[in-house]
Amino acid sequence: MTSGAEDLSKRADSFIEKADQFAQRHLAPNAAQWGKGIFDRQALFEPAGAAGLLSLQVPPEFGGLGLSFGDKVKALQKLAQVDFSAAMGLVNSHNVAAQLVQASPHALSPLYVSHLMRGSFVACTALTEPGAGSDLGQIQTTAIRNGDGWLLNGTKTWIINAAHADGVVVYAQTQEGSGVKGIAAFFIRADSPGFERIAVATSSALSSMGVGGFRMTNLYCEASHLVYEPGEAFSDIMRAINRARTYVAAMCCAMVSQALTDVSVYGRERSAFGRSLNQHQGWRWQIAQAATALQAGELLVREACDLIDKGCEVQIAAAQAKLYATSMAQTHLGSLLHAMGAEGFLDRYAFLRHLTAAHTASLADGSTAMLLERLAIEFRPKPGAI
Amino acid sequence: MTSGAEDLSKRADSFIEKADQFAQRHLAPNAAQWGKGIFDRQALFEPAGAAGLLSLQVPPEFGGLGLSFGDKVKALQKLAQVDFSAAMGLVNSHNVAAQLVQASPHALSPLYVSHLMRGSFVACTALTEPGAGSDLGQIQTTAIRNGDGWLLNGTKTWIINAAHADGVVVYAQTQEGSGVKGIAAFFIRADSPGFERIAVATSSALSSMGVGGFRMTNLYCEASHLVYEPGEAFSDIMRAINRARTYVAAMCCAMVSQALTDVSVYGRERSAFGRSLNQHQGWRWQIAQAATALQAGELLVREACDLIDKGCEVQIAAAQAKLYATSMAQTHLGSLLHAMGAEGFLDRYAFLRHLTAAHTASLADGSTAMLLERLAIEFRPKPGAI
Amino acid sequence: MTSGAEDLSKRADSFIEKADQFAQRHLAPNAAQWGKGIFDRQALFEPAGAAGLLSLQVPPEFGGLGLSFGDKVKALQKLAQVDFSAAMGLVNSHNVAAQLVQASPHALSPLYVSHLMRGSFVACTALTEPGAGSDLGQIQTTAIRNGDGWLLNGTKTWIINAAHADGVVVYAQTQEGSGVKGIAAFFIRADSPGFERIAVATSSALSSMGVGGFRMTNLYCEASHLVYEPGEAFSDIMRAINRARTYVAAMCCAMVSQALTDVSVYGRERSAFGRSLNQHQGWRWQIAQAATALQAGELLVREACDLIDKGCEVQIAAAQAKLYATSMAQTHLGSLLHAMGAEGFLDRYAFLRHLTAAHTASLADGSTAMLLERLAIEFRPKPGAI
Amino acid sequence: MTSGAEDLSKRADSFIEKADQFAQRHLAPNAAQWGKGIFDRQALFEPAGAAGLLSLQVPPEFGGLGLSFGDKVKALQKLAQVDFSAAMGLVNSHNVAAQLVQASPHALSPLYVSHLMRGSFVACTALTEPGAGSDLGQIQTTAIRNGDGWLLNGTKTWIINAAHADGVVVYAQTQEGSGVKGIAAFFIRADSPGFERIAVATSSALSSMGVGGFRMTNLYCEASHLVYEPGEAFSDIMRAINRARTYVAAMCCAMVSQALTDVSVYGRERSAFGRSLNQHQGWRWQIAQAATALQAGELLVREACDLIDKGCEVQIAAAQAKLYATSMAQTHLGSLLHAMGAEGFLDRYAFLRHLTAAHTASLADGSTAMLLERLAIEFRPKPGAI
Repeated sequence: MTSGAEDLSKRADSFIEKADQFAQRHLAPNAAQWGKGIFDRQALFEPAGAAGLLSLQVPPEFGGLGLSFGDKVKALQKLAQVDFSAAMGLVNSHNVAAQLVQASPHALSPLYVSHLMRGSFVACTALTEPGAGSDLGQIQTTAIRNGDGWLLNGTKTWIINAAHADGVVVYAQTQEGSGVKGIAAFFIRADSPGFERIAVATSSALSSMGVGGFRMTNLYCEASHLVYEPGEAFSDIMRAINRARTYVAAMCCAMVSQALTDVSVYGRERSAFGRSLNQHQGWRWQIAQAATALQAGELLVREACDLIDKGCEVQIAAAQAKLYATSMAQTHLGSLLHAMGAEGFLDRYAFLRHLTAAHTASLADGSTAMLLERLAIEFRPKPGAI
Repeated sequence: MTSGAEDLSKRADSFIEKADQFAQRHLAPNAAQWGKGIFDRQALFEPAGAAGLLSLQVPPEFGGLGLSFGDKVKALQKLAQVDFSAAMGLVNSHNVAAQLVQASPHALSPLYVSHLMRGSFVACTALTEPGAGSDLGQIQTTAIRNGDGWLLNGTKTWIINAAHADGVVVYAQTQEGSGVKGIAAFFIRADSPGFERIAVATSSALSSMGVGGFRMTNLYCEASHLVYEPGEAFSDIMRAINRARTYVAAMCCAMVSQALTDVSVYGRERSAFGRSLNQHQGWRWQIAQAATALQAGELLVREACDLIDKGCEVQIAAAQAKLYATSMAQTHLGSLLHAMGAEGFLDRYAFLRHLTAAHTASLADGSTAMLLERLAIEFRPKPGAI
Repeated sequence: MTSGAEDLSKRADSFIEKADQFAQRHLAPNAAQWGKGIFDRQALFEPAGAAGLLSLQVPPEFGGLGLSFGDKVKALQKLAQVDFSAAMGLVNSHNVAAQLVQASPHALSPLYVSHLMRGSFVACTALTEPGAGSDLGQIQTTAIRNGDGWLLNGTKTWIINAAHADGVVVYAQTQEGSGVKGIAAFFIRADSPGFERIAVATSSALSSMGVGGFRMTNLYCEASHLVYEPGEAFSDIMRAINRARTYVAAMCCAMVSQALTDVSVYGRERSAFGRSLNQHQGWRWQIAQAATALQAGELLVREACDLIDKGCEVQIAAAQAKLYATSMAQTHLGSLLHAMGAEGFLDRYAFLRHLTAAHTASLADGSTAMLLERLAIEFRPKPGAI
Repeated sequence: MTSGAEDLSKRADSFIEKADQFAQRHLAPNAAQWGKGIFDRQALFEPAGAAGLLSLQVPPEFGGLGLSFGDKVKALQKLAQVDFSAAMGLVNSHNVAAQLVQASPHALSPLYVSHLMRGSFVACTALTEPGAGSDLGQIQTTAIRNGDGWLLNGTKTWIINAAHADGVVVYAQTQEGSGVKGIAAFFIRADSPGFERIAVATSSALSSMGVGGFRMTNLYCEASHLVYEPGEAFSDIMRAINRARTYVAAMCCAMVSQALTDVSVYGRERSAFGRSLNQHQGWRWQIAQAATALQAGELLVREACDLIDKGCEVQIAAAQAKLYATSMAQTHLGSLLHAMGAEGFLDRYAFLRHLTAAHTASLADGSTAMLLERLAIEFRPKPGAI
């Protein structure tokens, strides 16, 4: 390792430690209440911004930390150990900052990026629509040329942060019938005329994720607020979605890791039938099984992160990491919860919130059905004599 | 079937249908709100009493319906399809009515049973303590002779209905060091001096189950309010616990049954990639797998019910039904939720509430670890030449 | 129960006990050797005939035992506990006897049934072809009118008993392009000109099942040897296949039952780390899990048997029993094998032979894919308010 | 990478390719026959020696290839894709060569290593005894000082290659009651007086693994043939067992990899219901699931290999790799076999042999129970704020 790389690595490690502290100081005391639906975005985004958590991958020349993708993922895991939903909310707003820097360094970046990094302005990315979950070619939101700008019409739903975002990157069809080629991306403000939020009535366990929807009625978007031209948006979505699959997988691993910690601590303290829990063989084998399954998940995540940081094709690795990690988390958060007995159901632990989160993770950024389809179609046997 | 039996069977069927209607009219409109922690016992117990749901197994000569155990279970399944937690709350109060009729037909029954059946008085059964989940011999609550009556001291936790009960059947140790032989049961009122409720901070998805705890400090219980003498309580607990395991298993099946209904309806309506969901083979195979697993669960439940109604030994059958059905529900409520896409996460469906409930079910009335232990120890190979 | 029914039930029980003895005396001493491919049909079929095992469902007026389907299944389970493959071979020849009695009581029955019941003549049923596994409409074997009789041409493969059968019920297409409607069934003798056996090179663990194939080249079949007319054969196949699915499921359960017996005996005798195996909690929980899974399988089988004996529709129940039981056997024969340590790999036990058999069972009489498809398409939510 | 490292890597890759060719030319034509118990060691060991497969990790200065552990594992995977049992036989004899070079470079190495590398002399390692599977402290074989040498008495069983080995590294207790500290290792010849082979009657699918046992009665071992002094043998066993767990895991992955190749080729060729198999969604999702599970296994193996080649502690990583990979192979070899339909049961494929092998792998070098116990006891939560 060169000395420059060593410095970078030390800085990253130190930052990941800070993320851990943030999780303990700012997320842990709020998580149970947020999990009951009493969420206040002020308590999350501005402290996170101050801790650097909204600048992770923004390049240093734009005021960010310039972390690698792999290090960003490690920081997110620290947050997700305590509150998966809050971590999802933060990374979504962060991603818009990183995206604006790259796609619009001169127009949009100066206007929004510093506010996004501070957490005083919260953003999100809006793809999903009521009738088009996974099928991008089916997007019904339209963007029609209007003078120098565009008029947007349509409805988005199941958008992370939509319940409280100030700005949204909206994906819309610019040319009916053109499929994914006509899709462009626009940055719109929630205070624009024609923007109306729509609540999504779902589990309060997800309130810090801010899941919601909105309707755009003849919403005017200036030319300068075009993020991706038609034809460019789709490849950006694909690139972003592989990354999102990877960090969602990582965050599922993080929830299981925290559960294992809680269970192993509890197993030393609590006794049943005259012995501590961890002296019961059946009980402790559940830990061994969960730890093994978790390790497999962590390695799949690390593989995808390495490919991303090397600029390699990651579609298969990301899909495999997500497919494995979401299912693993659903299974082992359950078995670890049972290993806690009734104690695990207390609000002071994350088991129940995280179980709901792990199921949400199966839907986010490519459902299990889509991942299976993709992996099945892309499967190629290893080379070698047959 | 004799004509008397036929009449009984018709009456039972008609009553089960009424339970279904009650679930749709009284539980369905409230379930989402209750699931967010906004529960009002008035909205549940009195309407349920009016519908006969608190009289199921109370004998006709005491004003009840006198249903068989198997028919009671079918009625509970109708409730659990909509709200497992509410069904658990109702059956717990109901069970106290049936218990008082049997154990104290002349003293306690005249005082409480009609109120319990109407739902104007709510009761529960209190076994679990902070330090003794599954290990009955470890009960720390004491009952000491005091004049004609008893003085009770101790703490109970994770008690269904404890958050709002008017009366409690408390299990307490009358003679230190005597293990299960010294345990007796007492009926106490929540308005007695020395009774203090303790909240249990847990998932709001369980609010209609009223999970809570209470502390008794020198609480005086009259002699007439003794439900079971020392030495009698334990066999009552064992009998009750086998029944509870059976109906908990049945209610887990009911949740999966409702989920299958929701998914199959949705699969006809919703389309993806140009076809309805149920035209996708991978999607519809999940239904086949869940339906098969559910049928196995239903048959295990039916077997246990038949043994109970015939007065046979049911310990193994009840443990197997619960072990299988809780695990099956956790697996298939998850896979069926995913089959709904984001739609399944809406409050109008029960998937997320029921997933939490299915995990709770693994703890209630004998944890998975206890059931495995019991089944392992009791295992006998089938007779036959070896 | 009427006294006639009681007699019948006693006779059946006594016969099932005899089947158990036959398994111990005739199958157990041969099973390991047969499992290595050294099979002699003399050692199986004639002793089985003498014990009545080839007359189970043949009506008493034709010299058979006239057992119910449920009792036949119990007898088959006794055989399958020791050697699944041999049991499959026997039941296939038996089924032809029962079929000839029903379909051709005056022509074919007098010629063959007594020999079939004695085991001196062995038969099988031939449906599968090299290019048509599960898709009956695709049968390529043709039967063309020739004078009073028929000329058969075509190839069958994966036929149980084909390696050593004297007679075969062949399903053939009588009218190209007519799909299942044109299929008829013919009884042919293996010593007919134009009949040529084709070996199937597969696991020696299946040798007592006699899996093989044959080719028919202008094989002449007399009119009297037509078993089912075109149009009648298909419904017979469907009826037979539901029964076969049920007994295959039952026999999978029987293999797990035997494995549980072996494991529980071994767990008392063998010690590790200073204690008998069954004093290790993790070890004994595997027994509890297998016993529970087995019980679910047994109940699904019993349900299907009851429907068959009542003459009810059994397609769904039979498919569910087979889907569940084959998968359960594959999982638990594996886990129980591991519970035996290296001991379980010895030829004196059936674990490895039975594992191969359980995987074969997934293919026989409707593959897992076909069952899932059928169950998915036939799924109907339970009635009740939604 | 330095140019020396690059050369090494190229040589390793080219050697792994040669291993692949060896598998196709020498294993593939024999595998089915060997799987039926007709094994001739001449056909395996000498050709393997000629191909360098018995010299993998022997250092170049002793005439070997000097491959890293990771590269050895890749070569073994090529063999195991075709015949797991043969690969196990080869690696066991190879390991003795590498062991003698290290433990006895001047005495035993000159006598045996060149013959071992050529395959003209076959060896094995003997630990397991009839009464002591996994519990090393319980070894009953004794070695007693006798003049300059030792007298060995005892019985070994379930030893790979024992059926045809010329030499054996025997682990024996030198001092009763001293537990693992008294265990030493001796190199004995099968032609020594007092050496008697004992057949193990097990599946013929394992014949190329040469599983067997032997009895030593006052067998004299010269001082020069002591491989490890008392006190040294145990740490060697532990080191060897972690490596063995790793390559067994790798070879389980290799079997699944071959199965995936076979299935994907077959899925393009075979059609059902008018479409190729891989056009059926349910069918192709099984491939996606198996490929994902396999990738997780491969990464666990790679992690363990990297730790071994870096000289790091590998106990946990090796145990996790084996625990995961054996279970994964048992599950997915089964599901992939079913995806082949009856075709997969043909001798020309390895599915059935490999299923048996994958279950054997669960017992070899540390049973699943032992691995769970080890992992449970060694589990430590990740550091970080709690």
